[in-house]
Amino acid sequence: MSVFDQMESEVRSYCRSFPTVFEKANGYKLWDTQGRQFIDFFAGAGALNYGHNDPGIKQKLLDYIAEDGVIHSLDMATTKKEEFLKRFREVILEPRQLDYKVMFPGPTGTNTVESALKLARKITGRETIISFTQGFHGMTLGALSVTGNSFKRHGAGVPLNHAVSMPYDNFLGDDIDSLTLLERFLEDKGSGVSLPAAIILETVQGEGGINVASQEWLKRVEEICRRWDILLIIDDVQAGCGRTGPFFSFEPSGIQPDIVCLSKSIGGYGLPFAITLIKPELDEWAPGEHNGTFRGHNLAFVAATEALRFWETDEFAKETIRKGEKVNLFLKQLTEKYPQAQLEARGRGLMQGLAFGVDDLADKVCELAFERGLIAETSGSKGEVAKVMPPLIIDDEGLDQGLSILEDSIIEATKTVNN
Amino acid sequence: MSVFDQMESEVRSYCRSFPTVFEKANGYKLWDTQGRQFIDFFAGAGALNYGHNDPGIKQKLLDYIAEDGVIHSLDMATTKKEEFLKRFREVILEPRQLDYKVMFPGPTGTNTVESALKLARKITGRETIISFTQGFHGMTLGALSVTGNSFKRHGAGVPLNHAVSMPYDNFLGDDIDSLTLLERFLEDKGSGVSLPAAIILETVQGEGGINVASQEWLKRVEEICRRWDILLIIDDVQAGCGRTGPFFSFEPSGIQPDIVCLSKSIGGYGLPFAITLIKPELDEWAPGEHNGTFRGHNLAFVAATEALRFWETDEFAKETIRKGEKVNLFLKQLTEKYPQAQLEARGRGLMQGLAFGVDDLADKVCELAFERGLIAETSGSKGEVAKVMPPLIIDDEGLDQGLSILEDSIIEATKTVNN
Amino acid sequence: MSVFDQMESEVRSYCRSFPTVFEKANGYKLWDTQGRQFIDFFAGAGALNYGHNDPGIKQKLLDYIAEDGVIHSLDMATTKKEEFLKRFREVILEPRQLDYKVMFPGPTGTNTVESALKLARKITGRETIISFTQGFHGMTLGALSVTGNSFKRHGAGVPLNHAVSMPYDNFLGDDIDSLTLLERFLEDKGSGVSLPAAIILETVQGEGGINVASQEWLKRVEEICRRWDILLIIDDVQAGCGRTGPFFSFEPSGIQPDIVCLSKSIGGYGLPFAITLIKPELDEWAPGEHNGTFRGHNLAFVAATEALRFWETDEFAKETIRKGEKVNLFLKQLTEKYPQAQLEARGRGLMQGLAFGVDDLADKVCELAFERGLIAETSGSKGEVAKVMPPLIIDDEGLDQGLSILEDSIIEATKTVNN
Amino acid sequence: MSVFDQMESEVRSYCRSFPTVFEKANGYKLWDTQGRQFIDFFAGAGALNYGHNDPGIKQKLLDYIAEDGVIHSLDMATTKKEEFLKRFREVILEPRQLDYKVMFPGPTGTNTVESALKLARKITGRETIISFTQGFHGMTLGALSVTGNSFKRHGAGVPLNHAVSMPYDNFLGDDIDSLTLLERFLEDKGSGVSLPAAIILETVQGEGGINVASQEWLKRVEEICRRWDILLIIDDVQAGCGRTGPFFSFEPSGIQPDIVCLSKSIGGYGLPFAITLIKPELDEWAPGEHNGTFRGHNLAFVAATEALRFWETDEFAKETIRKGEKVNLFLKQLTEKYPQAQLEARGRGLMQGLAFGVDDLADKVCELAFERGLIAETSGSKGEVAKVMPPLIIDDEGLDQGLSILEDSIIEATKTVNN
Repeated sequence: MSVFDQMESEVRSYCRSFPTVFEKANGYKLWDTQGRQFIDFFAGAGALNYGHNDPGIKQKLLDYIAEDGVIHSLDMATTKKEEFLKRFREVILEPRQLDYKVMFPGPTGTNTVESALKLARKITGRETIISFTQGFHGMTLGALSVTGNSFKRHGAGVPLNHAVSMPYDNFLGDDIDSLTLLERFLEDKGSGVSLPAAIILETVQGEGGINVASQEWLKRVEEICRRWDILLIIDDVQAGCGRTGPFFSFEPSGIQPDIVCLSKSIGGYGLPFAITLIKPELDEWAPGEHNGTFRGHNLAFVAATEALRFWETDEFAKETIRKGEKVNLFLKQLTEKYPQAQLEARGRGLMQGLAFGVDDLADKVCELAFERGLIAETSGSKGEVAKVMPPLIIDDEGLDQGLSILEDSIIEATKTVNN
Repeated sequence: MSVFDQMESEVRSYCRSFPTVFEKANGYKLWDTQGRQFIDFFAGAGALNYGHNDPGIKQKLLDYIAEDGVIHSLDMATTKKEEFLKRFREVILEPRQLDYKVMFPGPTGTNTVESALKLARKITGRETIISFTQGFHGMTLGALSVTGNSFKRHGAGVPLNHAVSMPYDNFLGDDIDSLTLLERFLEDKGSGVSLPAAIILETVQGEGGINVASQEWLKRVEEICRRWDILLIIDDVQAGCGRTGPFFSFEPSGIQPDIVCLSKSIGGYGLPFAITLIKPELDEWAPGEHNGTFRGHNLAFVAATEALRFWETDEFAKETIRKGEKVNLFLKQLTEKYPQAQLEARGRGLMQGLAFGVDDLADKVCELAFERGLIAETSGSKGEVAKVMPPLIIDDEGLDQGLSILEDSIIEATKTVNN
Repeated sequence: MSVFDQMESEVRSYCRSFPTVFEKANGYKLWDTQGRQFIDFFAGAGALNYGHNDPGIKQKLLDYIAEDGVIHSLDMATTKKEEFLKRFREVILEPRQLDYKVMFPGPTGTNTVESALKLARKITGRETIISFTQGFHGMTLGALSVTGNSFKRHGAGVPLNHAVSMPYDNFLGDDIDSLTLLERFLEDKGSGVSLPAAIILETVQGEGGINVASQEWLKRVEEICRRWDILLIIDDVQAGCGRTGPFFSFEPSGIQPDIVCLSKSIGGYGLPFAITLIKPELDEWAPGEHNGTFRGHNLAFVAATEALRFWETDEFAKETIRKGEKVNLFLKQLTEKYPQAQLEARGRGLMQGLAFGVDDLADKVCELAFERGLIAETSGSKGEVAKVMPPLIIDDEGLDQGLSILEDSIIEATKTVNN
Repeated sequence: MSVFDQMESEVRSYCRSFPTVFEKANGYKLWDTQGRQFIDFFAGAGALNYGHNDPGIKQKLLDYIAEDGVIHSLDMATTKKEEFLKRFREVILEPRQLDYKVMFPGPTGTNTVESALKLARKITGRETIISFTQGFHGMTLGALSVTGNSFKRHGAGVPLNHAVSMPYDNFLGDDIDSLTLLERFLEDKGSGVSLPAAIILETVQGEGGINVASQEWLKRVEEICRRWDILLIIDDVQAGCGRTGPFFSFEPSGIQPDIVCLSKSIGGYGLPFAITLIKPELDEWAPGEHNGTFRGHNLAFVAATEALRFWETDEFAKETIRKGEKVNLFLKQLTEKYPQAQLEARGRGLMQGLAFGVDDLADKVCELAFERGLIAETSGSKGEVAKVMPPLIIDDEGLDQGLSILEDSIIEATKTVNN
């Protein structure tokens, strides 16, 4: 690791949690330079829903590169962009009776969020965005201003403004309906909160600690948006592309967001890609008003198009839900078996997590799991939640192995706790 | 183009200037679906300095994909990241006696700029950033706040703060030294401008209209930074990676920036990639203080590493300068031959441009050039400059052809003007 | 009124509610140019607690002017400033075992609030101020940023930042403890709200609609401030100087604010005056860091010093409480007698109000009251509360007359409602 | 001074420069408690243009108080407000062919400036205000954001935004026309400076160091405002009310500001008062959109009305100019007689100053002058300018005495310098 120590900025982080040099990957497995194999319960923080190096996508990429297809095209038209747009409409939008225009912002999550915020402000002529506690939306100044984490926020070096944080579902416990506050602030002209341009939220908060909003809560947020003429932005960067089962995480709630942010797994193969979906009547952009050099990453178009094959039927979503329930059941059993770890199982689909009530225990468990061949990360504002987010294509064998390592690590870690 | 019209957001722009569907690319040429060939004087807005689909890089990419190398790794250590770091040190940093730590922000220009601004603010505990008129640094809120273009700024939808715009070299004409103002503002405690965290600038402004700062001006900016303990950030996203000749555009001036932003061509093959170079003593980041999903785009590591072969000797830089002088000479001749277009030739290396004193003429010329098989874009706050930015690997034949089309287009366009 | 219509800006407001030209005033009475007499239940929005033209103060002012005492002294030392400081210590601070340094900001409420916010930010090095729904703190940009009223906020013309609005006591109804939210936001590192410099509040919100915070709630706010090292600023501009009974409105709760803002009645005779009280250990101002031309308004020193005679015993406070209870009882009876007006009685001491559940009714009642010789204003974000805020020196006869007019006006106004 | 040391906040400043306790005042003289007499070259920082305790105003005040005139009236109509409005129109506006609506903001300079900025932003829908280097406009957040002094700005504790500082006349020396920059920034769409709501300026900068803008410069600023549809706000708080000769300092230039801010001497007797003058067609305020408790300070109406007697003929202005020239001549002679002090004489009318090229010398001179019975303060961002701003009613004898003390103090102070 010496090259990294010498040459890479101190800002590097995951390489500290997983201190080895990775070389190869396939499906739900990774191998390091010593040939050690790891089961991946991390999945590129949600960027590898279809697993590492899916063979179908791989072949398409090899062919496209070999035949000298256009690789970089800014936002000019290309055959592969066209194919992606058509296929996305056929496979994703039309079956769900959704009608969205597609915007290609810069190829990262924070870029799609920034584009969404800009557009919402333009359409409404208002400045405030309402976001939620524990929300995570990105690291550039606009996206950071709607992100809850104080360590990340502090990194801005300037005050983060034009955003108001409201309590997420269950943030105030079971007894207090968190939307009561939002409604009171909106309806009272003396609340100190001006009518916002938009509300932005994740249906399941990944970085915030696998907090799941109920379908009723989402429905009520949408109603509030409609009542007050506020735009609803769903940041589906981590929860989208099937992570919770359906392609869009908001499908079960029946809500129809005005703007949807997608990135991470939309690129299919872990390639940088992001799109912003906009209701046609809200597509008030002027040409070039938001741009970027890498909006035409054709390898990502190729990969993303091929990845849509997973969505031709609803089998993939069903399997994710089945595996998710299996994981959740397992995690719930852990909460009972290891009371000393003060565990809580959380999640939807394969966006699962295990919250530890004992400080630093989640970190310790992930560290021990790594030693045992499992890659799992923590999230939550105190790093108190171990995420269980394998590639969606993982088979039951892989799932069982990974969960078994997780349990072993908890046993080992809580031994230390008990001493 | 109907799919694009129906499905892509109105924000799309270059596809309006170059209304065809591109399919293949090689070197300095592109082909559309009808098989029409185009000479590329645009080069992905500077992202394709080594041309489209360089055969050496291509083979490396094919091999890496074929052998199931890790594609997506967040910021974990991988063999290909390691190779890139080593090679970048050997080929770029050490021969230039530069010592920088390397940060991998999100893989776009605006991400590296945002990381630079955050770090400068953290190090100094100050908020203000000084930027320059006509500067362009990106579309996310932090980068946009130091960007000059009013159309882009207005897209923010919120006031852009914590930045002070100062006149770039020559902005006030030949008679007024533009740095006089900056110095007066800094030295006078009643100027209304607080001591900034950093000064950010491009040595040649690409989007701002191919404005070239003199080496003396750059040197003086550095002196001002040293005198006042201000960090100097060079945004070399467009002018770097050899566009002006040397790898870093600031090399001829002898300045040593505290932070350098690179993106566009650093990825070698037009793949999304960006790095932030930081003087080791300024690497005050906490782990994870700035992060992002696509910091470990291994295809870009592979391509970027291979692309460094161009820099093993100084031959490549010399050739760029030679070709740049050739282009510049040609452009200067145009200024004399077509006085009615009120032309001005500008540029350094192969970052050349032709400013048109007649409104809308640059656009018209680029439109006519496209019809004749040349891709060239405009820049400048009124779109008054046609950029001549071919891939650096272009041969003299390609250059001559492209310039010839440019001249023909001017002839045609000025006919209209004269009528 | 024609001169006013022609020459005074449209921003004028109270002269629209009370459309006559006033000429003389004494005690709790005002007379207009036609000799019509009005009972004053408005008291200069709390600036005339000791009544109009108190004879004792009047004589002191006459003497001081006659003998050519210094009138304007910036912040130079004068005999009258010295007397005020000594007397304020003897009569107010020492008997209450309070230890504060006295700052003289500009002579208005918004100036003292601005000075308090600046100082809190300087001491803590933090930017955020927590304020409360329905809070009113002033019209200049700093004070306005912590004011809740959306109409006033919108007047800023720029976004108001660095402030977070939290629900005031009872804002969320009886069932939800409004401080739960504040505590959750502070304790959770992912809440999106950074540790504030200060919390600013009124113990009874005057402009916000006579909302009374319970003593327990105030106590808990103080505990939260201590636990998190947040400064507590009490804006006692309207509720202070005996309006609720005791000199400081916060006395019954036993809290010890870090900074106290006083204005309105501190000047004794309705003269512009304001002071900021600062715990000695927090007096971190540099000389001249906050200044203003009218910090040395010696007529106000003279008046303010004499006005302190009301506080030599606790008789004055007791009388205010007695009268307040009388008013409150009367208002409560009204709520029962006129159910069609959907009344609610609110208040503490002689800061009483009657909330009307029927739209526009409060305005109508005040209008009718004016016709009958009573001056009373509305407050609340919808103007739904008629304030009952006579000078504290009012006698029972005046009180009875005023309340009787109020009832008559309600009878008349609700007639209209019933039709 | 012990009471002040013990009880008054450290923020106090002038009492440190003039360490005595003042008791009485008359005309251009002050007396302390020991009976020592001082000549006043400070005049309440411009608030006492008509001298201390003018006998005419004094009598009016005594009468008004004696007869129980309304003292405090918020913004209700009163006889004295009516008289002021009429008289101001007759004596000031009509003879100058000016047409303005009068707004009564809070009674201080910073309040009128805040009201002007709000209104300009409302009218134009823009946020940016352009101010000038060394400008001083007040201490509340809005006014502070357009103030140049870094010490004062830093006191804000939050970043000051929505304002752009431009070089004042002569800020860049004789060779560079400071408005060139402003024009370039406005006309270039890539300048990074958006079209402002307003330009705010002082025609002579008092706190900034007695910097005098030329009439041509003022005229050009007005032209720029008209060309770009920018509102022109003249902050005449210090330079107005005859300080430079004419009632409004901008009269000689012939410009017609859209909004004028007046305070300090408008109250006539040193009483807190401020007005905002607004072109009738720009009076777009909604009722109550900006308010304040002390807008109806009737003693100030009485004093201000009587003070207008000075303006019934042009004699007063002529005398000021004559005395100003006399002072200026004297100061110029000093510059020649004491080259070691590196003096520069500056000013217009009786707003004169002497800049010292030697550090700390101005402070020393003022300190020595105080010992000799003269009150004079420094200004400028380094306190390098001794202001000569006696009451306008000063006679030649007083002027001579004061100037003589000033010279003696320079002699004494430069002795030290020479050692």
